Amino acid sequence: MRQAGRYLPEYRAIREKVSFLELCQNPALACEVTLQPIKRFGFDGAILFSDILVPLVPMGLHLSFGPDHGPQISNPVRKAYDVHRIRQADPQECGYVAEALKLIRGQLAPSITLLGFAGAPFTLASYMVEGGSSKNFSHIKQFMYTEPEAYHLLLQKITQTTIAYLKMQIEAGAQAVQLFDSWAGMLSPEDYRLYAHPYACQVLDAISPLAPIIHFAKQGGSFLPILSKTSAQAVGIGWEIDILEAGRIIPPNRTLQGNLDPGALFAPPALLKNKIQNILKFAANLPHPFVFNLGHGLLPQTPIDSVTLLIEQVRSFNPELV
Amino acid sequence: MRQAGRYLPEYRAIREKVSFLELCQNPALACEVTLQPIKRFGFDGAILFSDILVPLVPMGLHLSFGPDHGPQISNPVRKAYDVHRIRQADPQECGYVAEALKLIRGQLAPSITLLGFAGAPFTLASYMVEGGSSKNFSHIKQFMYTEPEAYHLLLQKITQTTIAYLKMQIEAGAQAVQLFDSWAGMLSPEDYRLYAHPYACQVLDAISPLAPIIHFAKQGGSFLPILSKTSAQAVGIGWEIDILEAGRIIPPNRTLQGNLDPGALFAPPALLKNKIQNILKFAANLPHPFVFNLGHGLLPQTPIDSVTLLIEQVRSFNPELV
Repeated sequence: MRQAGRYLPEYRAIREKVSFLELCQNPALACEVTLQPIKRFGFDGAILFSDILVPLVPMGLHLSFGPDHGPQISNPVRKAYDVHRIRQADPQECGYVAEALKLIRGQLAPSITLLGFAGAPFTLASYMVEGGSSKNFSHIKQFMYTEPEAYHLLLQKITQTTIAYLKMQIEAGAQAVQLFDSWAGMLSPEDYRLYAHPYACQVLDAISPLAPIIHFAKQGGSFLPILSKTSAQAVGIGWEIDILEAGRIIPPNRTLQGNLDPGALFAPPALLKNKIQNILKFAANLPHPFVFNLGHGLLPQTPIDSVTLLIEQVRSFNPELV
Repeated sequence: MRQAGRYLPEYRAIREKVSFLELCQNPALACEVTLQPIKRFGFDGAILFSDILVPLVPMGLHLSFGPDHGPQISNPVRKAYDVHRIRQADPQECGYVAEALKLIRGQLAPSITLLGFAGAPFTLASYMVEGGSSKNFSHIKQFMYTEPEAYHLLLQKITQTTIAYLKMQIEAGAQAVQLFDSWAGMLSPEDYRLYAHPYACQVLDAISPLAPIIHFAKQGGSFLPILSKTSAQAVGIGWEIDILEAGRIIPPNRTLQGNLDPGALFAPPALLKNKIQNILKFAANLPHPFVFNLGHGLLPQTPIDSVTLLIEQVRSFNPELV
């Protein structure tokens, strides 16, 4: 989950000079911003500073980020014939991401794991068709129901692009990667199975032999039985999911990652400690390997002291004493 | 779920003349709009045209609806002392809702059930604290974690207002009501249990002896075990939930309601039929009483022919033949 961001003054100082997209596309600045939370907090893993949408640019989408509006695409895919102008992109067209990863790896202590990531094909398609974030996802649903051939062609182009993009990240130094299906939860389980999961699985099958891959379907609690049967080494667990329930459904040879609500960092220290300890204790009683993490990225107003407290709590936890 | 709306030309014609809030507050127009989908489609139930936020006005919030921005509150609750200016409202201050229900009942065929509704206390509090819709609900979470006394005082005021408001609706002619916890899914199961569920239960306990009440926690699939143990006669099942899974968790003396994705109405007829038939067949095999419905309100661009087809499919379904 994103570590760097607006909650850090050193990040805001850089963002005063460049736009969000410029920051993603500038290897030296992306490297600097990636390392900011490592320098401040000493996390065990460093997460590439980027955005799941950057591969959409070489695919032919006109992408911008408004100051507070989130991503906007001025030429969305709405008709079947729009799919023909969408290119399966060469990952070198996002070569700045590989450059950033090489720079980060060069400056990162060898003991710190470097993580890359990509959006899952359904989520990227949602942005392409909706033209940005959406309230009800009516455009992407209409498109996939009424133009199934064009939809599947689009998803196949995105899938191939994503596989090549993640391979490039791994070659450039990413030691593990995460696949984010941020909008999976907007689908019924049946639709998820038909329209989203097969493409996520293609990515997971292609990448999991190369590096550990974490599969995270946001608000995907109802899909856990499906998510538990992929080739991904790890499954992301959102905070809306009871971790014990996840442990019952997901086989114990899979790593679980999560599941603290990023909103919990707004709690006072005693309550935050309690929430962290609960997850650590529940996880310690499960047979699965567990990576403590937030259920999503750090929020812009997160108090810095809460992040410090979180690290102390996780580092000092002794599962033998549970 | 909302039946009237922008997908109907007769609704859009009225909305050209009045704002959304004026429409909610005008009994004659609210009645007219409530009856529009009944006249056109002949549904078995009529749903009061209103908004869950109207009781916030007498409680002291300055509420408006932008043309496409959703609700906005210019004086949100952000500090503990803000709670003191929030009034437990007399439902007669929303007397226009009772007036509308009386007018509707007078014009509705006796065979058609009239349904009222209200927002659940946590969801109303979220709007009050966030000042509108929210992406990450950081304000309400910060408020409930850091100001628990003020939070619980606020929720108690909302709960009492909501109980009185639903009683007024039932006295005015609502034969069943629905309690919407639209933002419940933004909470972890533990937080839902602590900060949202007790207040929803107070409303359900006060209202269920008076009229059947449907409890719907949107994106609340992880809370089904909690939702299955209330005094509500019916449980709303969103489309992200597998209805067979819901049937396993919820006791068979409770009615299930749902669970078609409103986005399914954008599918071509054959696919839409298939999606409707699947739900009807699954539900017919469950021991629970079942009310076919969408998992949420009708979307603005919904094709009218899809609504007609839906009604034909549900009316002609014979559970004996499953």
